[in-house]
Amino acid sequence: MSRALALADRVLAGEVRAAARLMRALDDELPGAREALARLHGHSGKALLLGITGNPGAGKSTLTDQLIRHYRAEDKRVAVVAIDPSSPFSGGAILGDRIRMQAHAGDPGVFIRSLATRGVLGGLTASTRDVITVFDAMGFDVVIVETVGVGQDEVDVANTVHTSVVVTVPGLGDGVQAIKAGLLEIADIFVVNKADHPDAKRAERHLHMLLDLEGRERRGWAVPIVPTVAPRGEGVAALADHIAAHGAFLRDAEEGRRRARARHRAALLDRIYAMLRHEAGEVIARSGGLDPLLDALERREVEPYGAAVRILEAMGLRADLD
Amino acid sequence: MSRALALADRVLAGEVRAAARLMRALDDELPGAREALARLHGHSGKALLLGITGNPGAGKSTLTDQLIRHYRAEDKRVAVVAIDPSSPFSGGAILGDRIRMQAHAGDPGVFIRSLATRGVLGGLTASTRDVITVFDAMGFDVVIVETVGVGQDEVDVANTVHTSVVVTVPGLGDGVQAIKAGLLEIADIFVVNKADHPDAKRAERHLHMLLDLEGRERRGWAVPIVPTVAPRGEGVAALADHIAAHGAFLRDAEEGRRRARARHRAALLDRIYAMLRHEAGEVIARSGGLDPLLDALERREVEPYGAAVRILEAMGLRADLD
Repeated sequence: MSRALALADRVLAGEVRAAARLMRALDDELPGAREALARLHGHSGKALLLGITGNPGAGKSTLTDQLIRHYRAEDKRVAVVAIDPSSPFSGGAILGDRIRMQAHAGDPGVFIRSLATRGVLGGLTASTRDVITVFDAMGFDVVIVETVGVGQDEVDVANTVHTSVVVTVPGLGDGVQAIKAGLLEIADIFVVNKADHPDAKRAERHLHMLLDLEGRERRGWAVPIVPTVAPRGEGVAALADHIAAHGAFLRDAEEGRRRARARHRAALLDRIYAMLRHEAGEVIARSGGLDPLLDALERREVEPYGAAVRILEAMGLRADLD
Repeated sequence: MSRALALADRVLAGEVRAAARLMRALDDELPGAREALARLHGHSGKALLLGITGNPGAGKSTLTDQLIRHYRAEDKRVAVVAIDPSSPFSGGAILGDRIRMQAHAGDPGVFIRSLATRGVLGGLTASTRDVITVFDAMGFDVVIVETVGVGQDEVDVANTVHTSVVVTVPGLGDGVQAIKAGLLEIADIFVVNKADHPDAKRAERHLHMLLDLEGRERRGWAVPIVPTVAPRGEGVAALADHIAAHGAFLRDAEEGRRRARARHRAALLDRIYAMLRHEAGEVIARSGGLDPLLDALERREVEPYGAAVRILEAMGLRADLD
């Protein structure tokens, strides 16, 4: 048996250090890492995949922490993939939060993995999906993907998980702008955190109105709005109930199959694109880097599309785009 | 002369309708569109490219509106590329803002183009750069790229423009989390909008502290913090002065050349990746779509990497990633 497959078997046996090693090997595109992941793939598909997105400052980390406690109390094992670079998990942020998260440091039922994906075009989903597959195959019951919820990321996360929880808070900016059109589309569950804030009821009413405007019930699921006060754990049990209800809905409804297919399609396209970028990188490296072409561009001897076509031709592709 | 080149010449002559038609042709990947763009490329490179990013609710649209007024008063022509789906420009948002923007509707010196890029992986920069090139070649003096400023988008925008303005407001969430590490890195100029807010001075001091922590002066440029009250136009002239100063800095300093090279490199890679995705799409369409492969994935007859390799092989590439 190859060393890669041996590593995969140690991951399947639940060895945390083996899992961390495999994740690093996947990041570094080491030989054998994908072979190991392929073996894990056959053992994945059982975990609940949960996305937590929302504005910076909405309290996502505290809520994630409380959800961990909730699921741990039910003896479920919880893994966290933290993508937001400002998250305490991934190290970009506040000391107090980071210390708080260390509450779980000694708990073998909790595994936190932070992903530094800044500046990696399309890098988010490929590596996120690999890490999720590893956690899933290891037998974690819940995998929480936490990310900053504005921009492209939260759409990617929604395409990656079963249930997408969008966290918002009262009094963010103008209120209306704080809930972007896109977040309405991707939320399976809304959380209004800091529900003890004077403006909380107004924020809830506003959300209800926005959801009603766009047709509250989407393909058989009425998006609930859950008030929470994350630091005190208020509303967390109700949130977990709604998450469980959404899971049951997906298992029973056609919508569940539709979303699984969409998830697999997005994952496959991401992998294809990642491999194409890798191939392009190899060809560029072999031909002495991009600098000669950039020089030609700056001298206006070639225009950008012509320059790109040259690389595709060097890859052996005929780029007949027009 | 081909119809595409005739269209390019009409764009160069400043015909707004020809420009709009070319942008649609580029979006739809119509034959000839890239030929036209290649001709425009030789005429671009003169406009000031300005990025406006920041949290939702920070007042980016109002600030953009005020900058348009400021530059119009100097008789400069201004184009806006609006990427934020919640922006009044791109139609996702508040009626009042949209009406306000129509103040410029009759002004031939202002051209606003909204980009609907949601869900398009890596789609942001390729189409954004094409639209910028069209505006630039048309002779617009200033091209403002406005986007929501959290997530991957703002890094892409920073890699696309000369000067990146990050807009923040007092009292957003916990204050610390509102300014993400990434925004510190990409800001050439910070704006603290709503400077009449009681917490404004505190937010400014906090930003100063954060900038000092990371070494205020970056490659010869000390990032200024500009207080504004956008609805009243306060601070807008000072902001324009800082933008002009940053432009002068880039023209004189080695940093300007370094950034131009980085910008060209990112643009070239984006174009290469976009063309590769297009080629993959063609091959997938010719081979009957992804569904047969997704069926095989769901039956676990193939694992995700194996499935991706099949597409690369169908493209004529040898995918020896391991």
